[in-house]
Amino acid sequence: MSIERDKIRWNGWGWAAHKDALAGREDVWTWLAQELGMPSLLATPARDIADVTLPASRLHTDSRADLVAMLGPDRVRDDAYERAFHALGRSYHDLIRLRAGDLAVAPDAVLYPRGTDEVSALLSFAAKHEIAIVPYGGGTSVVGGVSATSGSFKSVVTLDLSGMDRLIDVDVSSRTATAEAGIYGPALEKGLQAKGMTLGHHPQSFEFSTLGGWIAHRGAGQGSGRYGRAEDWLVGAKLATPQGILDTNGFPASAAGPQLNDIVLGSEGAFGIVTEATVRIHPAAQASDYRGYLFRDFGSGAAAIRTAIQEELPVTMLRLSDPDETRFYRAFGALGKKRGISDRIADFYLRKRGFDARACALIAGFEGATDTVEASRNRFNAIAANFGALELGEGQGKRWRDGRFHGPYLRDPMMDRGIGVDTLETAASWSKIDTLYAAVRDALDKAMRETAPRPGAHGVTLCHISHSYPDGASLYFTFFFPRALGIEIEQWRAIKKAASDAIVANGGTISHHHGVGEDHLPWIAQEKGALGIEVLRAIKRTLDPKGILNPGKLIPE
Amino acid sequence: MSIERDKIRWNGWGWAAHKDALAGREDVWTWLAQELGMPSLLATPARDIADVTLPASRLHTDSRADLVAMLGPDRVRDDAYERAFHALGRSYHDLIRLRAGDLAVAPDAVLYPRGTDEVSALLSFAAKHEIAIVPYGGGTSVVGGVSATSGSFKSVVTLDLSGMDRLIDVDVSSRTATAEAGIYGPALEKGLQAKGMTLGHHPQSFEFSTLGGWIAHRGAGQGSGRYGRAEDWLVGAKLATPQGILDTNGFPASAAGPQLNDIVLGSEGAFGIVTEATVRIHPAAQASDYRGYLFRDFGSGAAAIRTAIQEELPVTMLRLSDPDETRFYRAFGALGKKRGISDRIADFYLRKRGFDARACALIAGFEGATDTVEASRNRFNAIAANFGALELGEGQGKRWRDGRFHGPYLRDPMMDRGIGVDTLETAASWSKIDTLYAAVRDALDKAMRETAPRPGAHGVTLCHISHSYPDGASLYFTFFFPRALGIEIEQWRAIKKAASDAIVANGGTISHHHGVGEDHLPWIAQEKGALGIEVLRAIKRTLDPKGILNPGKLIPE
Repeated sequence: MSIERDKIRWNGWGWAAHKDALAGREDVWTWLAQELGMPSLLATPARDIADVTLPASRLHTDSRADLVAMLGPDRVRDDAYERAFHALGRSYHDLIRLRAGDLAVAPDAVLYPRGTDEVSALLSFAAKHEIAIVPYGGGTSVVGGVSATSGSFKSVVTLDLSGMDRLIDVDVSSRTATAEAGIYGPALEKGLQAKGMTLGHHPQSFEFSTLGGWIAHRGAGQGSGRYGRAEDWLVGAKLATPQGILDTNGFPASAAGPQLNDIVLGSEGAFGIVTEATVRIHPAAQASDYRGYLFRDFGSGAAAIRTAIQEELPVTMLRLSDPDETRFYRAFGALGKKRGISDRIADFYLRKRGFDARACALIAGFEGATDTVEASRNRFNAIAANFGALELGEGQGKRWRDGRFHGPYLRDPMMDRGIGVDTLETAASWSKIDTLYAAVRDALDKAMRETAPRPGAHGVTLCHISHSYPDGASLYFTFFFPRALGIEIEQWRAIKKAASDAIVANGGTISHHHGVGEDHLPWIAQEKGALGIEVLRAIKRTLDPKGILNPGKLIPE
Repeated sequence: MSIERDKIRWNGWGWAAHKDALAGREDVWTWLAQELGMPSLLATPARDIADVTLPASRLHTDSRADLVAMLGPDRVRDDAYERAFHALGRSYHDLIRLRAGDLAVAPDAVLYPRGTDEVSALLSFAAKHEIAIVPYGGGTSVVGGVSATSGSFKSVVTLDLSGMDRLIDVDVSSRTATAEAGIYGPALEKGLQAKGMTLGHHPQSFEFSTLGGWIAHRGAGQGSGRYGRAEDWLVGAKLATPQGILDTNGFPASAAGPQLNDIVLGSEGAFGIVTEATVRIHPAAQASDYRGYLFRDFGSGAAAIRTAIQEELPVTMLRLSDPDETRFYRAFGALGKKRGISDRIADFYLRKRGFDARACALIAGFEGATDTVEASRNRFNAIAANFGALELGEGQGKRWRDGRFHGPYLRDPMMDRGIGVDTLETAASWSKIDTLYAAVRDALDKAMRETAPRPGAHGVTLCHISHSYPDGASLYFTFFFPRALGIEIEQWRAIKKAASDAIVANGGTISHHHGVGEDHLPWIAQEKGALGIEVLRAIKRTLDPKGILNPGKLIPE
């Protein structure tokens, strides 16, 4: 296996050995308490794995023996760590349960298949014996996509695909590559870079997520402006199902009816398990340029993005923080640093130029051929200037890039101190984006205030435009709140419901790149319509007649 | 209605009043006979509508009365012209039958609904009374997509959507427009151009095809390099089905499971009828530049296209003719013109520079902002020069643009003279394109020779790369052959089968932009796989449980 599971945190983010960047930073915690209207933060440590009791495995001993006969003993695991590790994804809601040692939801065994045929054989076996199957790539779902839920079945088994990590072929002439679905982001990129190529798909989970997961949840990386979303780069896939293997082939384009790729994309393990995929790749970027800008307000920043995207400027990323996100990260970055004369001069200059509390930071990224990068950067500079922005240089861009995958690590120490932290995201057309933004932010603020553990306590809502299109953009919200201890799940549900209701009522999609999973299920029928849900059910019935695949995700009962 | 049906040919292409460009051009016919290895051409005139007998309408008189009550008498038509006009599409195979007066397949009535709700009500009515329904936009399908086949039902009614032609909304800020699906290309473009915008979707059928048809068959216009295919520009659609209305909403992007748009695209009236759509639009091009190039051979031309597309040059169109197509159109254009000294000098110069019978013409089109057009053209000039091409100037480009919608008009006079003419198209990855090209061309040549009406007679196969992608390209074949009178359908089937078998055996899709219809049905199972076909059947059963919608298209029995 390319990844050793015991080196990764079972109840938090990433490498177990990762150093806590906030260790000993009492100034940070004091400031965060103030931001949340709390007199102080609480100590809410996670339980140790040794102190956690798992329910006994419900897998029938005969089935276990059959599986061992099929895979060998090393690839049928049911020790406590493996079961705990694969119990849930890595959402706030998952971590609340994992950290509390609540493993009521956990797989009865974890299998490590190798190859499409083996996955296919396991699915036939599971269907015959009525065992629920949960596919697991990197397990980084933040929407309950890999919860080891058994549904109506007696037992549930997780298929961990990390043993299927071969880069099978790189066709440089056709700019495509074929790989097994369990390959992790870094391994895939390493293989492609060795041929001078890149997929360029870099979600925040990049280090811990897999090719198959990106396809199954219809993801988008941070640089999708250049490299595309999963639906843009997927050429063809093999989907193992209890009814056999669906091979979507793969053409540059086809008018031969609805394309089966589009049914694999976003199928979230409910229709089958992606075992192999062919993807569109690019030459590794000759040059890259990431830099910061400061706009006077969110509207002018959004207008600059819209202008650039609608004139088809080849940008890799345009990421615009709203005033609160801008202020928050600026204050966070300034903690523990001495303010000198140059900081005061900068502040004076900004105020004089009209940059006040409404100011919004933007990071623009350009990758590709050297001359294209330079031309695009220059053109974006001109657009930004037209909208009154200040260009802040490459330092801001470098800092963002250096930390692009580190954000999730900050969640664990926050959760140790009674802070809840979650994210959600949506997208809508440009003509709806302002009202959607205001409605979701207001809903979050109100719900966090209403569910706060004491009067006067409240949450913090940060937002940025993360991805843009000619017809609209996505909004990515990060929110922190003081936890209502003991009723944390209910508190989270109330906040999540308020935000999600606001999203669907204001023309947003319930997810732009995180997927549906369990968490967005209550809103999916509103988005797809009753007939749309029937279509999804019909596809599921065809590929998974017994309904063993990833119960409780994607499709409402 | 925006289009008067009686001004359009019922058994040929386009406006009835269109002047025959080849009238009196005996030189053309003599030359064509030589090209086909025939001593002379035959007279094979079409039958007049007055001499054609239609089968009696099988629509129950009660049903007819109900439909008149629903729509009024003017929108329920069953006169001979309306039934003949809507009997079939406009493929070679259709025209053979129409011109012979074979109207065994014809709708029992033609309805002209207005609005989604009315279409929905008609579908419920038809399902209840077990009447097959064929949706009809412009009726230009060349793959049997609108044949008025009744399937297992007693009667069949065509829904002509041309009365649903409103441009409902243009959202310039979000660059989207919403229109009824029956709007024709020119009317849609006129409405958009009035706001300074364009959809830019220009298939060869542009003047006679509709927005709904483009979506239903997953089409691509000639300029899809810039404006995208239907799947790129569709934001959302309303699909009226016997089970109600499926509204796919429409977001700039979404990860909320498989997207229902992708089920509407390519659904070919078998899942429902597209009644309204929101599409992505662009500012009308400030500038355009179309010009010709001459490459020494097909390989160097294809390599230039691949280079340009893979370096993401913003091209609107790159269309590379193979040696036979280059030679054929050159000879055709030269007919009836006196060859002067300058022609002989040009020929001498070309031969000396190595341009011989293998030479290939390319038309490159650039549209958009003035500076982008200029920069792209210059860059393509450099790429073409690197591959040894001669730039031939804008004259070639202008001639192509002026005639871009006129090709199909040439088919009618050819069919008057015993010539069969058809086209087919496919797409594959760059690494497969050479073998695919050779295999299909050989299959066509062999089949046309084997089915020729006399020894020594043969066909002519022309091919061009019509659309290109980073991972591959499409091949568009045009072929002429001397008809085997009396067994023309069998002859056509043999040729079609040979080419289609070669396509699927060599990694091509059975259609890049024409669709499946009836004609590609024998190959669709091979392309989609047995499980893929089951998925399509399940979707159809959900939306059209009685199977009344467009029987015999898209999905094999």
